[in-house]
Amino acid sequence: MPKRKICVVVTARPSYSRIKTALTAIQAHPELELQLVIAGSALLDRYGNAIDFIEKDGFPIAAKVFMVLEGENPTTMAKTTGLGVMELTNVFYNLKPDAVITIADRFETIATSIAAAYQNIPLVHLQGGEVTGSIDEKVRHANTKLADLHLVCTEDAKQRVIKLGEYPHKVINTGCPSIDLAKQVAQDPELDFDPVKKYGGVGPEFSWINGYMVIMQHPVTTEYKDAKAHILKTLKAVKASGYPAFWFWPNVDAGSDGTSNGIRSFRELEKPENIHFFKNMNPIDFLKLMKNARVLVGNSSAGIRECSYLGIPVVNIGNRQNRRKRAQNVTDVDYNERQILSAIEEGINREHYPASEIYGVGESGNKIAEILATVELSFSKTISY
Amino acid sequence: MPKRKICVVVTARPSYSRIKTALTAIQAHPELELQLVIAGSALLDRYGNAIDFIEKDGFPIAAKVFMVLEGENPTTMAKTTGLGVMELTNVFYNLKPDAVITIADRFETIATSIAAAYQNIPLVHLQGGEVTGSIDEKVRHANTKLADLHLVCTEDAKQRVIKLGEYPHKVINTGCPSIDLAKQVAQDPELDFDPVKKYGGVGPEFSWINGYMVIMQHPVTTEYKDAKAHILKTLKAVKASGYPAFWFWPNVDAGSDGTSNGIRSFRELEKPENIHFFKNMNPIDFLKLMKNARVLVGNSSAGIRECSYLGIPVVNIGNRQNRRKRAQNVTDVDYNERQILSAIEEGINREHYPASEIYGVGESGNKIAEILATVELSFSKTISY
Amino acid sequence: MPKRKICVVVTARPSYSRIKTALTAIQAHPELELQLVIAGSALLDRYGNAIDFIEKDGFPIAAKVFMVLEGENPTTMAKTTGLGVMELTNVFYNLKPDAVITIADRFETIATSIAAAYQNIPLVHLQGGEVTGSIDEKVRHANTKLADLHLVCTEDAKQRVIKLGEYPHKVINTGCPSIDLAKQVAQDPELDFDPVKKYGGVGPEFSWINGYMVIMQHPVTTEYKDAKAHILKTLKAVKASGYPAFWFWPNVDAGSDGTSNGIRSFRELEKPENIHFFKNMNPIDFLKLMKNARVLVGNSSAGIRECSYLGIPVVNIGNRQNRRKRAQNVTDVDYNERQILSAIEEGINREHYPASEIYGVGESGNKIAEILATVELSFSKTISY
Amino acid sequence: MPKRKICVVVTARPSYSRIKTALTAIQAHPELELQLVIAGSALLDRYGNAIDFIEKDGFPIAAKVFMVLEGENPTTMAKTTGLGVMELTNVFYNLKPDAVITIADRFETIATSIAAAYQNIPLVHLQGGEVTGSIDEKVRHANTKLADLHLVCTEDAKQRVIKLGEYPHKVINTGCPSIDLAKQVAQDPELDFDPVKKYGGVGPEFSWINGYMVIMQHPVTTEYKDAKAHILKTLKAVKASGYPAFWFWPNVDAGSDGTSNGIRSFRELEKPENIHFFKNMNPIDFLKLMKNARVLVGNSSAGIRECSYLGIPVVNIGNRQNRRKRAQNVTDVDYNERQILSAIEEGINREHYPASEIYGVGESGNKIAEILATVELSFSKTISY
Repeated sequence: MPKRKICVVVTARPSYSRIKTALTAIQAHPELELQLVIAGSALLDRYGNAIDFIEKDGFPIAAKVFMVLEGENPTTMAKTTGLGVMELTNVFYNLKPDAVITIADRFETIATSIAAAYQNIPLVHLQGGEVTGSIDEKVRHANTKLADLHLVCTEDAKQRVIKLGEYPHKVINTGCPSIDLAKQVAQDPELDFDPVKKYGGVGPEFSWINGYMVIMQHPVTTEYKDAKAHILKTLKAVKASGYPAFWFWPNVDAGSDGTSNGIRSFRELEKPENIHFFKNMNPIDFLKLMKNARVLVGNSSAGIRECSYLGIPVVNIGNRQNRRKRAQNVTDVDYNERQILSAIEEGINREHYPASEIYGVGESGNKIAEILATVELSFSKTISY
Repeated sequence: MPKRKICVVVTARPSYSRIKTALTAIQAHPELELQLVIAGSALLDRYGNAIDFIEKDGFPIAAKVFMVLEGENPTTMAKTTGLGVMELTNVFYNLKPDAVITIADRFETIATSIAAAYQNIPLVHLQGGEVTGSIDEKVRHANTKLADLHLVCTEDAKQRVIKLGEYPHKVINTGCPSIDLAKQVAQDPELDFDPVKKYGGVGPEFSWINGYMVIMQHPVTTEYKDAKAHILKTLKAVKASGYPAFWFWPNVDAGSDGTSNGIRSFRELEKPENIHFFKNMNPIDFLKLMKNARVLVGNSSAGIRECSYLGIPVVNIGNRQNRRKRAQNVTDVDYNERQILSAIEEGINREHYPASEIYGVGESGNKIAEILATVELSFSKTISY
Repeated sequence: MPKRKICVVVTARPSYSRIKTALTAIQAHPELELQLVIAGSALLDRYGNAIDFIEKDGFPIAAKVFMVLEGENPTTMAKTTGLGVMELTNVFYNLKPDAVITIADRFETIATSIAAAYQNIPLVHLQGGEVTGSIDEKVRHANTKLADLHLVCTEDAKQRVIKLGEYPHKVINTGCPSIDLAKQVAQDPELDFDPVKKYGGVGPEFSWINGYMVIMQHPVTTEYKDAKAHILKTLKAVKASGYPAFWFWPNVDAGSDGTSNGIRSFRELEKPENIHFFKNMNPIDFLKLMKNARVLVGNSSAGIRECSYLGIPVVNIGNRQNRRKRAQNVTDVDYNERQILSAIEEGINREHYPASEIYGVGESGNKIAEILATVELSFSKTISY
Repeated sequence: MPKRKICVVVTARPSYSRIKTALTAIQAHPELELQLVIAGSALLDRYGNAIDFIEKDGFPIAAKVFMVLEGENPTTMAKTTGLGVMELTNVFYNLKPDAVITIADRFETIATSIAAAYQNIPLVHLQGGEVTGSIDEKVRHANTKLADLHLVCTEDAKQRVIKLGEYPHKVINTGCPSIDLAKQVAQDPELDFDPVKKYGGVGPEFSWINGYMVIMQHPVTTEYKDAKAHILKTLKAVKASGYPAFWFWPNVDAGSDGTSNGIRSFRELEKPENIHFFKNMNPIDFLKLMKNARVLVGNSSAGIRECSYLGIPVVNIGNRQNRRKRAQNVTDVDYNERQILSAIEEGINREHYPASEIYGVGESGNKIAEILATVELSFSKTISY
């Protein structure tokens, strides 16, 4: 019997961390063949060049697709998505996969969904059913309505996808593959590399041996004009803390220019002595850096997901993660310098939390591969009510 | 106060009939400005040149967008949609509407939805919440999840959109504007033109004064290879009936080549004496032709909607209309020559049905315009559960 | 040493005939690897489905690209070309060819040129340096200026490309590969199939054993509104001749709708008894049909090229072939029924002409492959004056 | 009589300087209507936001088109061009201009050419017939072959365009509109603003009253991997000179990431005390800054054109300007730190040159407008030999 061809489209650095163990499991599965498509910002230097890590990890790449329009505004986000539909349609047409996987809720993930669904290729949606806000909220649930099979990360998400009119036997809680990596790191937590030596980055060097924090804050698309103002609050709070800080560059989204601009001009004018900037790390190194941090600051979903398992205190700023399911490690604050600073200090001065399993027990990659090998695939559906 | 700019995107002949009275009402409303965009198959001769009727009806056109790829297969449907996203994004960016309207569930309507939603323009979805099957089922509900305001046609649809996680105050049953036209025709039903003299068409001429039927059957996209086989069943049944028949050419969809091919080769080989073919009529003439028919045959949604109000017996073939709400005038049959023929004969020999108001009372256009002028517009939302 | 990867893009039925022997020779050459991309109208049923013949001939296909927008007008021609640039860029990026071949002067061939030239892939242009008119004139010479190596068909063309500022050692007269096929047919001219039995087609059947003509007339793009008027002149002349006629459907170009419409309505109204219509034939069968015809009518370049070698009288209508180099077999006429009819009758009643070698001696395919295997490839150039 | 609608497409900051006086003259001409389309990098913050200057200068904008793909490599250059063809086709289709102007030889200018030529809109090419190298060489001459009217800048260019097969009456030497601005500045040369106060920029501040240089160096696309190495040579030479330097950020081209990266890392590591960086200035301020400089360094065409009239010593690095016509003010050097430094020092220590008129006498804008108002416009042509 021929192997099932599973086409996975990775369009951004964080999506790769979220899917990596599933890629490994698909590649290793005797009844599956992996067709990996790397597209969008995952190919771009400005957004951390995820492609380099993917190639270093040894995954063969079936096709690469440049599709990001410059401008980082709502108009170019929409055009990027349209271009993605056209290009990915062509890629799927020539690769002829048995199923296509679209990941989560970034704006361009709907391009994968349309290119597959319209060509009658069974579409598997990962990480549906969660709740946030802004454009990714619309995109996530639209992906659900275009998809034929739903592999979700939490019980809460499972119930929501079913409420959205999907049949229960098409909705499976696999947990989040990002927790698989978190589990590896929890079992071997030692920070076995020097982040500055290994990854360079820019900004002052300082001693971080006695404790440091990690910052990761992305623009929120429907507020993209406010992006610069928002990031400045965090920059000021982090500088005011005086605590060693490793800061990761934001991903590609409307508003990231405001965010980047804010960071650049703050550096130029304020010359913060306690902040060093990175573009990217491979997923395991990134998790080790977090595991050994006192606190994570920003609005990254890693704070909600991986950190729930790792038990790291998280200062979650603004409404980007909105109603996403949280463990007790998360403290929500506004775009407010004083609130941010106070939550940072609280985080620095407390113990890590016990591991939470709300996003999975660390076996998602294998579970996903097994489901893809055995589930009945279909591309036609009707709402359940 | 400046008028609200309402941008309506019409991409196909049948969508125009479904929105026409709303266009008139928007144009006439003192607080609204109509920005009409004509795109896709509505510009193409092969699909009935809706643009000609629209221009004859006097609507000013803000932009035209060619975007249909040739091939009429799932791959070109997907690419058409991607191209539509890119082009419509540009159009909206330059027109700067206060709200965009996307209509129903044709595959390319999601292009309108993405171009608006991603640019933070409030998106109004018309005719959501219904149930059919195949790709339009996925598209319709994905449109719902991308839209901010839902103007639906039936109570049933309203409840379904609310179940999909939309807040009740954002879901309004306006009825279907197509019923407004049906009401006009019901009040003035006389067939005041000779269809062949006015619209030409191809095929034999015959006397239809003593009764005729109308046929309108579109390909069902996920079965596009079967399109030719399906249409042949209907052609044989119609020929076997010997009853005068006016047949409308199918719209642009994957599979329409199979349907068109089937019709062409049947004509060439079987030379049916009782079938005359039309490409298009203006919406009112089309409804008058239906109103005076003994029976409508095929799988057009007009059979479900307008004919419910007009009371015309409908032979509905196959599952294209699936679970769409029906009045008592509809008889469902399979792709089966004998079943079709028997249902045609039953329809011919009975009275018309009394008017049903499940799709509205004939005031939808004005109701829609009034809502658009007064409702609070927003572009950010979160699921209700 | 790795084989040189030669990527050939075929976008239309006639281009395939023009390149076929070169494809065979490239595939057979021990130092070359063929990467065949089939795109545009070559994939479409309405334009003769060249893809079927290509697959039957056993060429492996590296990628297929749907890119033709419907509408057959100047606007959709331009958009098709833009789409082609985007899609072919992606295809070349993933195939990584050592050289790309673009063929002649159809509007979409510049998409191949841009996709290769901009990516620093050596671009080989076939059949440059000829002279016609309208848009293909502009496209052909623009292709020359984008290309790095020029394989032309006549001495005249060679001198013209050099005058255009290309260095003489980059311009080689290989003759036209279409003459290779013509030579095969000249050596084995028997019509060994019944065209109607083998290819079907539509229209009346008649006896053609005692002589027939072939018609092939394409729309001229800058006059696309006149396309219908032009084709009617030819239709009337052919009908008036009463002589058996095999007519080939026109290719995809702006105006082809006018041409197709003209043919369809003429058939419907005039029911010509002496014209049978075909969509396509494989290249050899087509040449055999021509070789055994009394005369070829229309504006196809086959009349200028293959027929020069085959010696068939050609009635060349209008200015589509403009100043393309002619042998003595060509009679030029206007869009004028009387002139066309008179030239047809003259052609029918005379002998075939002796073979002319102005377009080559029938060894072009091998010559092209040998050049591609041995020439120094480069992608940077400066005008010679 | 209705005014002739002249559509000008500006896709980049330097193109605006090259066309500005023509835009003013077209707008002022009683028989012309200006349709200004701003596209590509002219809309992007990273490339100096030309749009801001254009809007400040009071030109009404008919349409804006985002079309630049991120990645700054040959693949994204090609895709940007394809996207440009599609979008500009739509823009022209809806604007219905009587003529379209495409400027010079940037890679994306061929998108304007195709969108116009394929839609049978007379195409006017400005600044053809010059000679450089790499991809812009191919693009410039391809633009010539697509265009119907050629308004060139030098006698040399005029003769070359005629040699390319264009008819002499379609080739007019108008001089370069950039010289019109240079003339204004030559007549009123005082530096009436403080560049750092007015434009900010980044980097150290220093006294420049006693003399400064200006640097402007763009990546050369076919060598894009060497971009970083090349820019470092210049950076080192400029630092070594110790002379006050105003440096302008490079434009969008393949390789600009290498160039930008080179500049960023040099700043970070070497902290040059004598270099201040700007993104952009309005064209007149930019020329005043140059007029008052001792020397211009880099590979900008402004060094060849405007500086020929302004008489400023220019150190022209590498082969980007290749065989473009030069006045005596230009010293050509390799990518070689020592050569660059030595030429800088020579330039600093000499007088400015007398004005050269090889690129015009400063009346081009009016001349161009007058020609556009009176010339016979056509869109069909055949090569002259």
